[in-house]
Amino acid sequence: MSLLVRTAPARAEAWRLAFAKAAPGLDVRIWPECGDPADITALLTWQPPPDLLALYPNLQVVFSEGAGVDQFLALGLPDTMPLVRIVDPALTDMMVEYGVWATLDLHRQMPAYRRAQAAHRWKGLPPCLAADRRVGVLGLGVLGRALLHRLHLFGFPCAGWSRSPHALDGVTCFAGRDALAPFLARTDILICLLPLTDDTRFLLSAPAFAALPRGAALVNCGRGGHVHEDDLLAALADGQLSHAILDVAGQEPLPESHPFWTHPGITLTPHIASDTVPASAARQIVENLDRLRRGECPSGLVDRGRGY
Amino acid sequence: MSLLVRTAPARAEAWRLAFAKAAPGLDVRIWPECGDPADITALLTWQPPPDLLALYPNLQVVFSEGAGVDQFLALGLPDTMPLVRIVDPALTDMMVEYGVWATLDLHRQMPAYRRAQAAHRWKGLPPCLAADRRVGVLGLGVLGRALLHRLHLFGFPCAGWSRSPHALDGVTCFAGRDALAPFLARTDILICLLPLTDDTRFLLSAPAFAALPRGAALVNCGRGGHVHEDDLLAALADGQLSHAILDVAGQEPLPESHPFWTHPGITLTPHIASDTVPASAARQIVENLDRLRRGECPSGLVDRGRGY
Repeated sequence: MSLLVRTAPARAEAWRLAFAKAAPGLDVRIWPECGDPADITALLTWQPPPDLLALYPNLQVVFSEGAGVDQFLALGLPDTMPLVRIVDPALTDMMVEYGVWATLDLHRQMPAYRRAQAAHRWKGLPPCLAADRRVGVLGLGVLGRALLHRLHLFGFPCAGWSRSPHALDGVTCFAGRDALAPFLARTDILICLLPLTDDTRFLLSAPAFAALPRGAALVNCGRGGHVHEDDLLAALADGQLSHAILDVAGQEPLPESHPFWTHPGITLTPHIASDTVPASAARQIVENLDRLRRGECPSGLVDRGRGY
Repeated sequence: MSLLVRTAPARAEAWRLAFAKAAPGLDVRIWPECGDPADITALLTWQPPPDLLALYPNLQVVFSEGAGVDQFLALGLPDTMPLVRIVDPALTDMMVEYGVWATLDLHRQMPAYRRAQAAHRWKGLPPCLAADRRVGVLGLGVLGRALLHRLHLFGFPCAGWSRSPHALDGVTCFAGRDALAPFLARTDILICLLPLTDDTRFLLSAPAFAALPRGAALVNCGRGGHVHEDDLLAALADGQLSHAILDVAGQEPLPESHPFWTHPGITLTPHIASDTVPASAARQIVENLDRLRRGECPSGLVDRGRGY
């Protein structure tokens, strides 16, 4: 049993230390030094090589380095091979931080105040109380539920939308395609935390933007593939959307010449909303390897039919 | 009994509507139309005229339009004339929003990500967990306690400093001058919510900055007079401070040529962290007028000896 860590070189050392601490006896190999590929039974990676199964013929389990797994779905992994995503409290905490930051940045009109600073203009804008700012979260998994729970404390009227029905304290829950338009119609700040699947690709395009109240704002912490980028630019140009905070893009890294970089209505962060913390996530992976060895179901097991 | 509302013209109409709703029978006059000055028994203002007592000879009570009252202390109001500040849940909620926004903006390195966007650079910075980011609040009044209570939920190690001893769940409390240096030494993000008094003027100057860990950040939601501006610029230039978010300045509006406007290490907002909401605050003022009429102590009564 050997675990191959095939991640960005900058992160490899942190993973090595984390596994050395979490499971000193575990045979962990750091790519590109993997020894005999036939030894590799478990793989941890974010960007899987397309020929994964040929490279590691004895692979038994694949761990995504993050919460998302869309990049694994076209690899043709056998149905019997578990695909496991990170469900780590640290990952959730970071997403809550980012989601609250983005919501408050928009709610308190900070993009406009940054323009005011650039123009040397000292002038308050009419304030809006949290009770009058409706926040909506797309996706009610672990991350979406935790974020809504925290946002609720600030007094924002909170709603969530997901494929299947949920019930959450203090949150108006909408479920299914037919409920999307009414959910959007009551949402001033829209936060996307959806998984990327065939059902959710380009969900955030012209019809969705048109269904929001005029001047609404968007936060995308899902995947670049959720947003139709030309439609977003059109909705910003038209004033239908007032601002977008994007942590993800259709192509990452975002090409140097992309119009998002310089758009006054777009705040960009380079896919940092939630970042796997090896020291914490390694414990979950080690525990999942133990579960698999005992024939149990790992935590964070992906349902390949749903795609997340 | 007549209440004179002597505020910025842009706010006067909101106050008029708020009082009409909170106390339809109250004689409210909106400056500059005050009728006979001898009728005025109560005054609501933010920037009091220096000749207040001469202008309104029958004045019995003065309400500050906000939480701060330092601008009233040199007016020579008789000891028997109550000076009352706003203690309104909406004011507290807004300060909590701003304090959490500022803390997360610094914690998640957003100033650096804004510079990265300007440079078209898509590159994550090493993240820091909330558990490793120590937050400290100067001032443990209603606002400071509410902010710490919320920040604690994010997992930041929280501390507070005040003149007199406090005990707060989950917060390490420091009290008195001698405890200031140890409080600062354990604080990565320092948030000032102090009242401005002779004791706190220029508290945030070179010695305080030197007592912080290298690379700490400052948030000032107190008064401009708390910060020695030249010392702040020196601490930023030297790297002792990494960034400052300032909602207040020594002179407001900040002069057009002031170096803060263009400093890459300074984020400015125009005194909007917490803004009195007339609809909500008018109810407190009406209730306080009733209390005074009954000979009771108003809520938010300022202790002129302490200065807040």
